[in-house]
Amino acid sequence: MVVEVISVGTELLLGNIVNTNAQYLAEKCAQLGLPLYYQTVVGDNHDRLLDAVKTGLNRADVLILTGGLGPTEDDITKEVCAEAMGFLLVEDAHTRELIEEYFKNGIYKEIPDNNWKQAIVPEGATVLDNHNGTAPGLILEKDGKTAVLLPGPPNELYPLFEEQVYPKLQKLRPETIFSQMVRVCGIGESQVEDKLIDMIDGQTNPTIAPYAKTGEVHLRITAAAKDEAEARELIKPVVKEIKKRLGNAVYSVKDETLEMAVVRLLEKYGLTVTTAESCTGGMLAARLVNVPGVSEVFREGFITYSNKAKKKILDVNKATLRKYGAVSKEVAKEMATGGVFATDADVCVAITGLAGPDGATEEKPVGLVYIACYMKDKVTVEKYQFKGNRNKIREQSVVKALDLLRRSILENYSK
Amino acid sequence: MVVEVISVGTELLLGNIVNTNAQYLAEKCAQLGLPLYYQTVVGDNHDRLLDAVKTGLNRADVLILTGGLGPTEDDITKEVCAEAMGFLLVEDAHTRELIEEYFKNGIYKEIPDNNWKQAIVPEGATVLDNHNGTAPGLILEKDGKTAVLLPGPPNELYPLFEEQVYPKLQKLRPETIFSQMVRVCGIGESQVEDKLIDMIDGQTNPTIAPYAKTGEVHLRITAAAKDEAEARELIKPVVKEIKKRLGNAVYSVKDETLEMAVVRLLEKYGLTVTTAESCTGGMLAARLVNVPGVSEVFREGFITYSNKAKKKILDVNKATLRKYGAVSKEVAKEMATGGVFATDADVCVAITGLAGPDGATEEKPVGLVYIACYMKDKVTVEKYQFKGNRNKIREQSVVKALDLLRRSILENYSK
Repeated sequence: MVVEVISVGTELLLGNIVNTNAQYLAEKCAQLGLPLYYQTVVGDNHDRLLDAVKTGLNRADVLILTGGLGPTEDDITKEVCAEAMGFLLVEDAHTRELIEEYFKNGIYKEIPDNNWKQAIVPEGATVLDNHNGTAPGLILEKDGKTAVLLPGPPNELYPLFEEQVYPKLQKLRPETIFSQMVRVCGIGESQVEDKLIDMIDGQTNPTIAPYAKTGEVHLRITAAAKDEAEARELIKPVVKEIKKRLGNAVYSVKDETLEMAVVRLLEKYGLTVTTAESCTGGMLAARLVNVPGVSEVFREGFITYSNKAKKKILDVNKATLRKYGAVSKEVAKEMATGGVFATDADVCVAITGLAGPDGATEEKPVGLVYIACYMKDKVTVEKYQFKGNRNKIREQSVVKALDLLRRSILENYSK
Repeated sequence: MVVEVISVGTELLLGNIVNTNAQYLAEKCAQLGLPLYYQTVVGDNHDRLLDAVKTGLNRADVLILTGGLGPTEDDITKEVCAEAMGFLLVEDAHTRELIEEYFKNGIYKEIPDNNWKQAIVPEGATVLDNHNGTAPGLILEKDGKTAVLLPGPPNELYPLFEEQVYPKLQKLRPETIFSQMVRVCGIGESQVEDKLIDMIDGQTNPTIAPYAKTGEVHLRITAAAKDEAEARELIKPVVKEIKKRLGNAVYSVKDETLEMAVVRLLEKYGLTVTTAESCTGGMLAARLVNVPGVSEVFREGFITYSNKAKKKILDVNKATLRKYGAVSKEVAKEMATGGVFATDADVCVAITGLAGPDGATEEKPVGLVYIACYMKDKVTVEKYQFKGNRNKIREQSVVKALDLLRRSILENYSK
């Protein structure tokens, strides 16, 4: 059961955007244990798309296409797939209703005419409702070949794939493939590999695949077995061994983000946290607020970008600012302390750094960031020298801040 | 002169990494005005790679391959291309010297045996010295077809391409290609197309290509001419016409983000802004802080997630909260007003909304967001009903908040 991925969009051929959809789908196929031998990118051009679809259907059993389902004239994926596989196009009443529904409470007064194009579907296709946009997903099946057509915007693609396509693909596998993620933070990819090299090299079933993320490493443990229970049994000792080797660097063995793991810990120990951010400008708080129901542990946060704001809101000492500068261990410490005293939170995480591109000096290069955590009347400060552009430096700072908070809770409360 | 890109690597097919190389090369080709119709990803597999290379050479004049040039047995790109194009493999003495040189001052004591494989090149190929690694780049030319083989690691690929391949490709193009971006906010992709449909349909040179982003539409205007100055002249009237049709919805005709355009306006009119965020939890402030040098116009911001924080920090009235609820026009208004009075900023943008997934009521569904802007002793409040998941709702809120700020400045100050 071979899969092939075709990404449709001139913006990919022009290099306007990175093809993260192909990576997403490739990762999902790996998770499902379905072999993927080719990925193709092709533009919104009838002849070339038709050629790519025909070639794909020749080589693979399941063709997954993303993009080109929108309302504009450029969008021709549906039409071309129907042509390649011999389907007629008809209007789908249900999809038409959904489009009306979508626009009813929306920000537009009228539904632009070209939107109705999205209610036209290949006759007999399975229509996948899209709750985050107007273009439905489609599954076309004929002569033992399947084409899955999905919208290009990731916020539409991901939920549609996970809820409506993944379970369908899962059934195509004779064996059950089950995988579990072990999420690691605080050590780099090569360090993780060093510590697990014998396990990775010797793997057959389960397999271990590392994925490097900003400041994190995710390890996917995948087992094939006759059912999920058996697969879980195969995975269990591997996860246990990884946890033993990597210790507290493993922040989760569930499907949860770093901020979720942190919020769970705060909840567990009944702690509230506040944030005091300079260079990250709200990114740390925004990560915490990603977690639904965070209000129990996070109530307020501060962005103190100027020195004046650091003084006024966080009571950072004028003399400290003058003597050490805003990007210093001392100021980070006072920011974290000030955050706790300005609120009724138990804990405060503070970030001050130089995200660049300007403002560097010989002693303080771009990428220098101090992260402080006030907990139980004690402040821990960590110094980092990050690489990359302004945004990359800020993203890494936030991951390290979340991880410092996590490690501080474990050290102070978990016994 | 058609180009095609083939990315070789099983790690791409497994979704371990995102194919940023393909984007890089696509953008370079667009810059060079060289048409790129297909990108292919294929693994380190002899038969499938051979098939991809043959197909590529059939469709295109220039084939650019990345990856698979390393020292391991998996690396077969060079061998397969030589086979497809009929080249013998011979050792290149110069490359052998470079490999010796590379290892001399390196971290390894001995040169691993498999490295000599990298000194083997197709006979008659142009060898491109790689100063950041041991695998040289190669250019194979035969029967009017060209294959450019480049290493996969970006730090080796980029300099090699820029210094040794780009100038060569530039010579293949008779015309200069130049493009300009027109960035639009506040109206949807289909509305933009409705208003520009005759221009888009009638396009030849320049061409107009729309790209949908969260809450934004970007229009790329591309012209081909004998030089950049002439291309700019062709683009100028098109940009003017688009601005005439879309009015203030055009926020920039430069290469700048929405937050950059907003910061530029704040700077222009000497205004400072503060932020008061509930559901977005710092995302609005973080967007502003994306802009280097924002400290002139943004000094501090608040995340008031709980009602108590709204009262304490922003002086939101207890009775208002009780009567209308935290997600209301009235509270948004008081948050924006309170933000200005809690700081010395001229302007405050406030966001309060229901990002879900929990907490919805009949009158207040998930996605309901109020955005307020205090400016010149007046508060404007806008009500939105967004679609999508928690993150999407928050992202859209931030775009609308930035746009409200932008439009408020234009209305109040630009005359």
